[in-house]
Amino acid sequence: MQTAAPTLREAETLPQPYLLFLGDTTEAGYAKTAFGLRDWASERCVGEFACAGATVSAGLPSLTPAQARMLGARSMVIGVANPGGRIPPAWLPSLLEALHAGLDLIGGMHARLSGIEPLRNAAVVHGRCLIDVREPPSALPIASGRKRTGRRLLTVGTDCALGKKYTALSLVRAFRGRGVDAQFRASGQTGILIAGAGVPMDAVVADFAAGAAETLSPDADPAHWDVIEGQGSLSHPAYAGVSLSLLHGSQPDVIVVCHEHGRERVLGHPHYALPSIEETIELALRLGARTNPAIRCAGVSLNTGALDFEAAQRAIADTAARLGLPVADPMRGGEAFARLVDACLA
Amino acid sequence: MQTAAPTLREAETLPQPYLLFLGDTTEAGYAKTAFGLRDWASERCVGEFACAGATVSAGLPSLTPAQARMLGARSMVIGVANPGGRIPPAWLPSLLEALHAGLDLIGGMHARLSGIEPLRNAAVVHGRCLIDVREPPSALPIASGRKRTGRRLLTVGTDCALGKKYTALSLVRAFRGRGVDAQFRASGQTGILIAGAGVPMDAVVADFAAGAAETLSPDADPAHWDVIEGQGSLSHPAYAGVSLSLLHGSQPDVIVVCHEHGRERVLGHPHYALPSIEETIELALRLGARTNPAIRCAGVSLNTGALDFEAAQRAIADTAARLGLPVADPMRGGEAFARLVDACLA
Repeated sequence: MQTAAPTLREAETLPQPYLLFLGDTTEAGYAKTAFGLRDWASERCVGEFACAGATVSAGLPSLTPAQARMLGARSMVIGVANPGGRIPPAWLPSLLEALHAGLDLIGGMHARLSGIEPLRNAAVVHGRCLIDVREPPSALPIASGRKRTGRRLLTVGTDCALGKKYTALSLVRAFRGRGVDAQFRASGQTGILIAGAGVPMDAVVADFAAGAAETLSPDADPAHWDVIEGQGSLSHPAYAGVSLSLLHGSQPDVIVVCHEHGRERVLGHPHYALPSIEETIELALRLGARTNPAIRCAGVSLNTGALDFEAAQRAIADTAARLGLPVADPMRGGEAFARLVDACLA
Repeated sequence: MQTAAPTLREAETLPQPYLLFLGDTTEAGYAKTAFGLRDWASERCVGEFACAGATVSAGLPSLTPAQARMLGARSMVIGVANPGGRIPPAWLPSLLEALHAGLDLIGGMHARLSGIEPLRNAAVVHGRCLIDVREPPSALPIASGRKRTGRRLLTVGTDCALGKKYTALSLVRAFRGRGVDAQFRASGQTGILIAGAGVPMDAVVADFAAGAAETLSPDADPAHWDVIEGQGSLSHPAYAGVSLSLLHGSQPDVIVVCHEHGRERVLGHPHYALPSIEETIELALRLGARTNPAIRCAGVSLNTGALDFEAAQRAIADTAARLGLPVADPMRGGEAFARLVDACLA
């Protein structure tokens, strides 16, 4: 028989600060969530905890769940994913230890924490929550298309996995650095963990996807900026519908197009050529104008992570000259990024 | 405690022929599903059955569930919807009578048959299925974007609810009349009841929507036509993402754009102007070319239901002259429709 564990009420912020759980991971590539939280939410991470045998670290203080609880932690976040997105039995004692210590558990994997019976039972016994951030909110509305107050920026990609989340987070940091009231709005699981709230766009029922995007950036003060994490690409053979729903529901005043230098084929779909940056800008402006006729493109975020400093500077300058728009790699910052921020706020 | 009733295996055809259930309906507008089945699947409807007090009829023989069972019926379809999509308690004795008589129950409403305990229990006792066609298939794939064999036509709308399903059904009938091997592929609940199979696109999780569309029209004989029921509109502020996923996953060789003469505002979103037919053709061809570069528009299906004969002929001729494309109202047939069919098969 299924025991119902208490779950987080929707639209509530995730319980923070976090203890990051690294499992028994020996491969840094699987710890992207933990690294993202360290990079963008370090003030809300009290430490890290791993099983015996783990070799990957996020560089935070190593704490037991009980120690983390005493330092104020309210939840333990699973900061690693293994292939297949499952929760291996070897993690179970550590997850139970966290519940026992008074921490809620937060997961962003495909496998649901609430689908594991010993965790469900322990959560009931200890009065704790099991929170699956990939679980879409229920009772989402159909999009109204009504224009909302406040200002909005959406990061728009030429493909998946090339820096839309990092670009949005970098822009929020820069906006705030200039005294602009800005908030990061997360549309994917890692972003939701970083922000402490958001909507997992990929898990929403299609009819409600634009409505979900509308709820993600509600009416706000006229001077406030919501900087919304983009998803997928309008030219992606599998995910374009999600990208269009997010674009329509977000009603952005400004888009920043994100591209990885040198990427020529769609990730995982090598028989599809990547759309050009020009094509992506034009398509996003045309489609986005349907719900916000004032939409404009402020510039391009170019991921140059695979290049050395000089090659990166050259790629950024060449792309800026070709497009006649500000182009920057937010991870490198500098003058170019300052110009991109200027153009966003112009 | 919840009793599990047996449910239909996915991708299986619905149990047919049907007995149509009309509830206690006194308003013809609520019986669209029954009328659609009568118009397009009459050879698979043995009769109709209503509660006392119903005044709406689909014009089929009036039969009890037991009589229908003896005439070969295998299921009773709820052919009416009431506001809110709920199943009123007054229908329950009739639904139980159908299960008792050996019929499965099929519903397309928001409320799930399997959510009603007396029906669940009776289905178990009588070894019958409760089938909710709005329940999306589980284990849908992410779209691959791989080009499939066979030929495909998709009806594309300027808005919702203006004839995309009727156009697709009319084209299949005309294709078959010319000896062309053609099949209607349903993407919404009424279409699924008519076809006996299909995918409820509006209920699929967004990430899998294009993948669902790919499964809807699988590889086929090179001369075979799948005629796919469109959904929503690429310019709809709430549903464009669903329309784009269906377009990308369908990979149509041919589109027929569907429009209602005189409609100027988006249904239910009066602050949005309807896109023009020209704009809709251009946008669908541009976006559709991503997964099928050979996509072309064969012409326009113009819903002239609100016009008299002469005004309709004039509207069709004027639109054809303006666009330089075949234009027809499939419900009126005639030469114009024959030319549209020619253009589809050209």
